[in-house]
Amino acid sequence: MTLPAEFRITFLPAGRTVWGRRGESLIAVARRAGLHVNASCGGDGVCGKCRVIVEEGGVTGGGGEKISPADYGAGHRLACCSLIESDLTVRIPAESGLGTGGLTTDVAARNRARMHVYDIDELRQNGLFLPPVEKFFLELPRASHADNMADAARITTALNHQYGERGMIIPLPVLRKIPGAIRGDDFRVTVTLARPVRRGNNFILDIQAGNWTQRNFGLAVDIGTTSIYAILIDLNSGKVLARGGDYNAQLGYGEDVISRIIHGEKPGGLEQMQKLVVGTINQVLDSLLARAHPPGEQKQGRVRREEIGSLTLAANTTMTHLLLGLDPRHIRRAPYVPVSTFLPPVRAADLGINLPNHTVALAYPAISSYVGGDIVAGVMGSGMYRTDKVTLYIDIGTNAEIVIGNREWLVCAACSAGPAFEGGGITHGMRASRGAIEDFQLDPATLEPTLTTVGHQPPLGICGSGLLILIATLFEHGIIDSRGKFNRKLTSPRLRAGNSGWEYLLAAAGESGTGHDLVLNEVDIENFIRAKAAIYAGAKTLVEEVGLAMADLEQVILAGAFGSYLDLDAAITVGLLPEIEAEKILYVGNGSLMGAWMSEMSNHIRRDVVAVVRRMTSFELSEVHAFQEQYTASQFLPHTNLDLFPAVKGRLAARNKPL
Amino acid sequence: MTLPAEFRITFLPAGRTVWGRRGESLIAVARRAGLHVNASCGGDGVCGKCRVIVEEGGVTGGGGEKISPADYGAGHRLACCSLIESDLTVRIPAESGLGTGGLTTDVAARNRARMHVYDIDELRQNGLFLPPVEKFFLELPRASHADNMADAARITTALNHQYGERGMIIPLPVLRKIPGAIRGDDFRVTVTLARPVRRGNNFILDIQAGNWTQRNFGLAVDIGTTSIYAILIDLNSGKVLARGGDYNAQLGYGEDVISRIIHGEKPGGLEQMQKLVVGTINQVLDSLLARAHPPGEQKQGRVRREEIGSLTLAANTTMTHLLLGLDPRHIRRAPYVPVSTFLPPVRAADLGINLPNHTVALAYPAISSYVGGDIVAGVMGSGMYRTDKVTLYIDIGTNAEIVIGNREWLVCAACSAGPAFEGGGITHGMRASRGAIEDFQLDPATLEPTLTTVGHQPPLGICGSGLLILIATLFEHGIIDSRGKFNRKLTSPRLRAGNSGWEYLLAAAGESGTGHDLVLNEVDIENFIRAKAAIYAGAKTLVEEVGLAMADLEQVILAGAFGSYLDLDAAITVGLLPEIEAEKILYVGNGSLMGAWMSEMSNHIRRDVVAVVRRMTSFELSEVHAFQEQYTASQFLPHTNLDLFPAVKGRLAARNKPL
Repeated sequence: MTLPAEFRITFLPAGRTVWGRRGESLIAVARRAGLHVNASCGGDGVCGKCRVIVEEGGVTGGGGEKISPADYGAGHRLACCSLIESDLTVRIPAESGLGTGGLTTDVAARNRARMHVYDIDELRQNGLFLPPVEKFFLELPRASHADNMADAARITTALNHQYGERGMIIPLPVLRKIPGAIRGDDFRVTVTLARPVRRGNNFILDIQAGNWTQRNFGLAVDIGTTSIYAILIDLNSGKVLARGGDYNAQLGYGEDVISRIIHGEKPGGLEQMQKLVVGTINQVLDSLLARAHPPGEQKQGRVRREEIGSLTLAANTTMTHLLLGLDPRHIRRAPYVPVSTFLPPVRAADLGINLPNHTVALAYPAISSYVGGDIVAGVMGSGMYRTDKVTLYIDIGTNAEIVIGNREWLVCAACSAGPAFEGGGITHGMRASRGAIEDFQLDPATLEPTLTTVGHQPPLGICGSGLLILIATLFEHGIIDSRGKFNRKLTSPRLRAGNSGWEYLLAAAGESGTGHDLVLNEVDIENFIRAKAAIYAGAKTLVEEVGLAMADLEQVILAGAFGSYLDLDAAITVGLLPEIEAEKILYVGNGSLMGAWMSEMSNHIRRDVVAVVRRMTSFELSEVHAFQEQYTASQFLPHTNLDLFPAVKGRLAARNKPL
Repeated sequence: MTLPAEFRITFLPAGRTVWGRRGESLIAVARRAGLHVNASCGGDGVCGKCRVIVEEGGVTGGGGEKISPADYGAGHRLACCSLIESDLTVRIPAESGLGTGGLTTDVAARNRARMHVYDIDELRQNGLFLPPVEKFFLELPRASHADNMADAARITTALNHQYGERGMIIPLPVLRKIPGAIRGDDFRVTVTLARPVRRGNNFILDIQAGNWTQRNFGLAVDIGTTSIYAILIDLNSGKVLARGGDYNAQLGYGEDVISRIIHGEKPGGLEQMQKLVVGTINQVLDSLLARAHPPGEQKQGRVRREEIGSLTLAANTTMTHLLLGLDPRHIRRAPYVPVSTFLPPVRAADLGINLPNHTVALAYPAISSYVGGDIVAGVMGSGMYRTDKVTLYIDIGTNAEIVIGNREWLVCAACSAGPAFEGGGITHGMRASRGAIEDFQLDPATLEPTLTTVGHQPPLGICGSGLLILIATLFEHGIIDSRGKFNRKLTSPRLRAGNSGWEYLLAAAGESGTGHDLVLNEVDIENFIRAKAAIYAGAKTLVEEVGLAMADLEQVILAGAFGSYLDLDAAITVGLLPEIEAEKILYVGNGSLMGAWMSEMSNHIRRDVVAVVRRMTSFELSEVHAFQEQYTASQFLPHTNLDLFPAVKGRLAARNKPL
């Protein structure tokens, strides 16, 4: 038995000090300190994104083979494979941390501004506005010898007579409250009624003395692999009272779902993942409650959590599993089987969510291991499931999912696009937080760039939407060719040979926010092309599997953070999206959150989702013979078959002509 | 602030010693010691049944006005109003305690032997045999690339294909078990399915690796004010594997429902009452599990509580309220409103019952505050609700309830008969436990009695069935007249004037088990006549309210402990029951338990009960004008109108003729 010496580890710039034991990894200690260190690979020493600087003290390991000798000499180490052997002072540089500002950045503001706002009046006109939870005020006849029915029957009878609501189940905790509530305000009570998702009885969720019908609220939550967003809704009007979000606290265990699953398979790992995601949900909920005021009711003050009667969750299949405590291990192993695609209603409190015992949470059902409830939410929330138009729905997040169809039929698939659009696998890729290059202009004569960054900070890296514009611009100007290779004939201080083929210098060390050169190299471009090819090929394969062509698409719905920033011209130029008129494009922003919101507006949507999911045909693209050919043919800018992109073809032809 | 001195109180014959504080009542200390002391009145010093003997030490109070000077001098005190002021040795005499043997006495054995055994084959033939919980064995196709549906869908699809079962909800705890269960025995699983009570989805309660279909058990519990009985059922065959019972631990707080309600209204009283009744249920359950072996499965050993998937409860309205933690206060106050007559399904574990989390308990619905789920259970379990015969159902327990009708119509009422049939309000009345006089014969010449007691012990008192035979015999022989008064012309050492009118000496002090004379006096007889009159008048009122006469009754079902022992001839002689042929009488014993059992056999009964309860018309007899007249006319042996009892009339006429 050894009693390990304990060391003081101080993290900068946070200034937080925690105890660490000899041999512990820096990333583990940082997590314990509540500090985020990027680790796309989940802490396996592969991705090299968890670089930190050991300013005082010593570590063993540290992943020197991934770090230049100069940086290594300056104390740079990979946190995941640095083992403590003394007191330490460790700096987490901006590019290894979460960045500042989180979702309050300009980008998030722009995202909201561009979000497609669903028309509640349209829901009402179509008879779809029907919140899953409703409050009814009853003035009951007083009990007498001639009318001495039980208290509970007095309520259900009145609900039937006054509002036509029938078939009630009153759970025991509510039954227990009834005698006091009925007599607390002279037989005037407010009943909170929850409708069944499909068939079955109504449930009475709560009973209160007096009239509380004006205070009926719902919560919609999108649980992304990276971020968790939520909105607090006035269920009487459908209006959003507050919205907010935060990074998913699971981020410290890897950026993609596979890393999370791997951690979830470890002993106690599933419980830990569950607690982390619920912790974030509770933080976001707290922030919403701190800000939300019911409209026109200054006197009654803030929304209390006891007044939230309904909760809709939307998430990908892995996130749903981790939230509900379902073993996710078979999601990542062939033949990729989730525990369940349909989820039962659950008491939010049973999940650890700080809501009253009566609040029922319903999670959107999934289609498969890789087409999750977030996508189904988008299909429902965007109205795609009830439109006549042949629609392509694309959600590009950590992964990319595609749905094609309309009210009659729906097909879907997940595309292994990789995380390029979120900055993954790109040398200087990053998420769209402060310092990310999100726009790019080129002087074609000098090849000098004009960079626009989030928050107008010195550039730290390139986010997905910036990468798209960058590559489209380079291609449009002939700096790179249709295979993504730099034109070797060009000479410019911006173009040079690097470790990963030629590279374009975006910002020199002196201009960047990292103190290093920021570049885009040919391997980055290859990764981008593979990603965009997977999506286009996936869509084309699906369309052709149902006997249509890309030209038959009547509408494209773009969802996901990337989808919201996506520059349509650039996306067509590189062959990510088919050529389609701008007016046929619908940006829905966070489709998952929108779907969760719509579920809080319309119990019809909650009910219809079961039938929609049942009729949605899921394709495993790797099993579809045509997909490989489509994918190969798509690995060009914009495509091997230029006739698929006549406008781009025309521009390229014009460019190649002498001026 | 005073620090009360603490005293040692030793109770005999139990030999148990506990601490008591100055001024505490003996009954409170005895309850804390887990010892039962009778207290019909709930401990208010009224009933005088809690007599104890203080053998050492001193108390203040003690209810001397209810105790003869000689007894008082010998240390006799009422436990409820004796306050501690020193160390004490206190003897609880047999007649003040629960008696020994509980429900293992001869009477309980006879009760079982006479119980109407329900015909499970008849249920099967009528398509009614359908346990609420069923186990299905599935051999699932293994997951593959061509068939990679979710684990949960694999199960629901197989349930549909192999057994035609559809519309499943899988609660979260079961979802969590699925991946392990499916792969635990190579895709062979047993699914435990619970059917909805009415409409709605099936629920999957459990999933196990391998084949466990042979082990599917249910529990039926009757919660009486006095006793709790339960049976453990093999849900595959419908057979009873074990049965047992015990006194309701609430007994220490009074013998009738009103005392219990009063205690339940005190701070913390409801929780205490709830814990007490659940404690008894758990004790009875433990004893069943210790004894039950599934048939033909010696190897697999005893039934485990995890294998009990279903639980039906039947109880009167007050007991149901106390079990579920529903405030009972308005049951005892005009206009006598219960919290609810319909009860939702509840997790047994949520009530504190030691059953697995997935076991759902369903309590029989009630009609009103005084016609409870125990009576509804009898109506359902006896098949009364589906017979064509006009039937009178009577359950005589601590109270008496009457139902009249058939499959077409049903009316019911509670009769304020008082507790005479359970020994209450009778000078030497007692429950049917050891030492209770249960049969009586008379030598008409000498008036000497021949007593038969439960367990063939020296007599301690008279139980209800003994009282009935005693009074019928005395009346038949002209010892008492039709008003219940002793024939003053008779002279016998057995007949004498007492404190409560004339009395008949059943056993002198030297022969009795109490060391006192056991007598039946005219006040006792008055109480008995009022009780039987209330029941007969109630039945006659109901029959006539629906336009029939007593002679139209085609069947009489007798339920309740008293009903099971009831001597039919005696009951007709005193005018408790109408004159009816013996073959039209059905003894069902504990109708409440039988109904609970039938619910475990037939989900159809669980479903139909809602409609039956809805169409059952409840009469408040005190509000029916005709009842008072009927009641007055019935306060004779057998009735003022002898023509209603032609056979009795004939015998009386024969007796009055000279021999």
